[in-house]
Amino acid sequence: MSFIRNLWYVAAWSTELAGTGPIGRTIIGEPMVFYRQSDGTVIALEDRCPHRHAPLSLGRIEGDDLRCMYHGLLFGPDGVCKQVPGSLEAPAGVTARRFPVVERHSWIWVWPGDPALADPAMIPQAFGLDNPDWVMKEGALDYAADYRLLTDNLTDLSHLDFTHETTLGAATGARWSEDHPSISPIEGGLLIERWLINNSLTQGPGGRADSFSSYRFLLPGLFLMNTTAYPPGTAAACGYGRPNAEPIFERAEQQAVTPVGDKRSRYLYATGIGSRYASMAMLESRMAVINAAFAEDNRMIEAQQRVWDATPAGTPRAFLPQDKAPYLFRHLIERRLALESDQLSS
Amino acid sequence: MSFIRNLWYVAAWSTELAGTGPIGRTIIGEPMVFYRQSDGTVIALEDRCPHRHAPLSLGRIEGDDLRCMYHGLLFGPDGVCKQVPGSLEAPAGVTARRFPVVERHSWIWVWPGDPALADPAMIPQAFGLDNPDWVMKEGALDYAADYRLLTDNLTDLSHLDFTHETTLGAATGARWSEDHPSISPIEGGLLIERWLINNSLTQGPGGRADSFSSYRFLLPGLFLMNTTAYPPGTAAACGYGRPNAEPIFERAEQQAVTPVGDKRSRYLYATGIGSRYASMAMLESRMAVINAAFAEDNRMIEAQQRVWDATPAGTPRAFLPQDKAPYLFRHLIERRLALESDQLSS
Amino acid sequence: MSFIRNLWYVAAWSTELAGTGPIGRTIIGEPMVFYRQSDGTVIALEDRCPHRHAPLSLGRIEGDDLRCMYHGLLFGPDGVCKQVPGSLEAPAGVTARRFPVVERHSWIWVWPGDPALADPAMIPQAFGLDNPDWVMKEGALDYAADYRLLTDNLTDLSHLDFTHETTLGAATGARWSEDHPSISPIEGGLLIERWLINNSLTQGPGGRADSFSSYRFLLPGLFLMNTTAYPPGTAAACGYGRPNAEPIFERAEQQAVTPVGDKRSRYLYATGIGSRYASMAMLESRMAVINAAFAEDNRMIEAQQRVWDATPAGTPRAFLPQDKAPYLFRHLIERRLALESDQLSS
Repeated sequence: MSFIRNLWYVAAWSTELAGTGPIGRTIIGEPMVFYRQSDGTVIALEDRCPHRHAPLSLGRIEGDDLRCMYHGLLFGPDGVCKQVPGSLEAPAGVTARRFPVVERHSWIWVWPGDPALADPAMIPQAFGLDNPDWVMKEGALDYAADYRLLTDNLTDLSHLDFTHETTLGAATGARWSEDHPSISPIEGGLLIERWLINNSLTQGPGGRADSFSSYRFLLPGLFLMNTTAYPPGTAAACGYGRPNAEPIFERAEQQAVTPVGDKRSRYLYATGIGSRYASMAMLESRMAVINAAFAEDNRMIEAQQRVWDATPAGTPRAFLPQDKAPYLFRHLIERRLALESDQLSS
Repeated sequence: MSFIRNLWYVAAWSTELAGTGPIGRTIIGEPMVFYRQSDGTVIALEDRCPHRHAPLSLGRIEGDDLRCMYHGLLFGPDGVCKQVPGSLEAPAGVTARRFPVVERHSWIWVWPGDPALADPAMIPQAFGLDNPDWVMKEGALDYAADYRLLTDNLTDLSHLDFTHETTLGAATGARWSEDHPSISPIEGGLLIERWLINNSLTQGPGGRADSFSSYRFLLPGLFLMNTTAYPPGTAAACGYGRPNAEPIFERAEQQAVTPVGDKRSRYLYATGIGSRYASMAMLESRMAVINAAFAEDNRMIEAQQRVWDATPAGTPRAFLPQDKAPYLFRHLIERRLALESDQLSS
Repeated sequence: MSFIRNLWYVAAWSTELAGTGPIGRTIIGEPMVFYRQSDGTVIALEDRCPHRHAPLSLGRIEGDDLRCMYHGLLFGPDGVCKQVPGSLEAPAGVTARRFPVVERHSWIWVWPGDPALADPAMIPQAFGLDNPDWVMKEGALDYAADYRLLTDNLTDLSHLDFTHETTLGAATGARWSEDHPSISPIEGGLLIERWLINNSLTQGPGGRADSFSSYRFLLPGLFLMNTTAYPPGTAAACGYGRPNAEPIFERAEQQAVTPVGDKRSRYLYATGIGSRYASMAMLESRMAVINAAFAEDNRMIEAQQRVWDATPAGTPRAFLPQDKAPYLFRHLIERRLALESDQLSS
């Protein structure tokens, strides 16, 4: 299985690097170790000591350096071995590959591809757990499934009415499967927007509202959603275009699907409420719903993966109107893979 | 691995379809979903939504229909999609394959092969949990083993003296490994019969008895056994032929081995006592022995499978007199597979 | 994966054969069953009944014989079937392969190769749990790792300073990674010796000592170590050669790495203290440290195996001075394998 290499991947929440030790994460099949230097900046190296291929994630942080705790080799933040126990000086060329890494919006982003192409300006704007405009809470789930089954899921929210009937779906009066969104290609992904007319606000001021739901869905599987609610009638007053009124409630969703390897993925998610509307109790209550709903997705998608595994290649799948965004996104993945393959062979 | 396709397979006990939702079962590698229509009749469809290949067994029964709870497609009992959420009408050709299915003798029988050949008259007579002649109790076990290791087991009961020494074997005074049965080919299987002379009746009137044990063992692995006990001397009086006297005790065993897939099987079993001889307490006591004995088989056969897995192909196995019925039955499987293979290629 | 066949392998501790039943062990991919005859001598047969390939390790010991508890075949200690239930006499040629086996130094040694070459004189001298010179205690660990990752580990003790920092390493003041050992080829392995100067004795008389650590590391992975402690200055007085003084404390380590199969190994270990210095309480305390340390190895080496599994073939590994003994030992394995391969093809 091949993955896009020249891309920023979300490796972890910043909060996962709060402890005293390094952490190991596998991104597109590459074992990587992440740790903080003494000034707090994050370093990403291959999680493989160049000596005997022990995992550096079982190592120890010493100032800005990382020591392999098998035979004690010490690596600087550039991945170069600077000390070999029992030797007066470290031999040249003993180096763990370093990956470009950026901490931004409470995520650790890593670039598995050509470091010369790793431009931090390509990292999209997200919300961030520490953003004063929002109160947010984060979580993560491991998936025994191909990451594209998750991107299918997140680019077609019609499933909210069914998979999440009692959590995110019918309970709110929204009809995600009936109210078709607009889908627009944007750089590296899709912009998906829709009005949900006269649904019930389960939080905030309560009562009924027109809600405008807008999200960017970006490679490899970033889901960055803003939901703003308005008094009923606002959608019509805006001609069902983008709202230009003052919202009465606001929500944010910051999610990333990261391919771990073949049929292994990780799903990092946070939910937030505009801080002017929210209390911590409201956020806890929202997070409980989100956790329940994402367990529903997990059960469905892992079961779907098992069906795919038991299905002969070439078995057709029906293409329906709701598959437009999943199809476009899979096509985008294919184009990027083909592009990288061409560049390698030229 | 290949399986006979044109055959009735036992998918489940009727009682497994007593709940409110559909159930998923894999039969010869085919994921299938089973549910009851409003009139109680059972429907079997492929457990794979033709849209995105989600499992329909995670779906919801709505009257006679089944709704996929991923994206909400609704399927009639013919497997044809009749509703796509967000579309005015369902597109043609979106269909989950329907399998012929029959509920009989408390089992759900399914036909994975050519539906035109699925004749319910080919379903053999079993006992049924609701048969007033018997009090019966059922159970099931999953096996990490090829189903033919189970058919070997059930066609050669000489193992009762050893594997089941303290449960079904020596404890009863029967000498299954010494008293050779008669083995007769019948349509789709074998008829295996023997007298067990002067053994002790552990239930019923007690004391000593001559018992006549007679079972049909039919493709793919149906075990349908009748045991009748008589006063000592009856076997001789009948010239060791089939008994024509009035029994003093009667038992029934209704069992099915169903191949789930490669090295995966399911074993469905029930034990019964003639209702004129039995109390529920007697049945419970018998079922406890059966459960203990079948755990002994499970341990032995799964361990045997692991030895087969670790054994180079071509390693010889000794052929002994007790292997006659297992051999004949494996040969029958091979002939059926060859027949189906010939039909496919002609 | 191929293994040396003509070699004595440690299958088990003698104490593992203290129960009433046979035990099953897989050695270099070969399932074997071990049991004691009535006089206590150990028999090793293939753990595969020649009839239906059921495991004999689920069988029953009857005097000097072993009965398969699937269909009741009885095997003599030569592996020849002497009884088939239901047959007047056992047919010729129904035989479970017998392996040469020797019980010595509290280990059960088995020879998977050509029995004609199995010379018990090739079994190296170890200590033995029942040796009056030592008080010893044994344990065992299963490894999901290639056995050569364990031989690498045991031939380079520089890792004690890091992997075992708080158990066997720095806590004792020894500098295993700084004090380079002498490494000498011996028959079937290496002799590895070093002085640890002026380290602290954590047991025995306490205080500081010069310790002489000497171990043979023999195919396939035997670790037989003697550690003797002397008053500080003894190393210098001996010219840093082998000690000829009276020790003030003594320890023994008796360990074996046994390949179970591909990426599966078993590690059998015992630690001992010279009985003139030791109490059972001292031994228990030492064993607690050993168990903790070997759990550290287990965690590191299984993680290392997973990194190797995720690493493309041909990825280089740095060769450092501490790799000399691991390298020599792997080379020795390769030469033996090549030799056996030549003998097979000639």
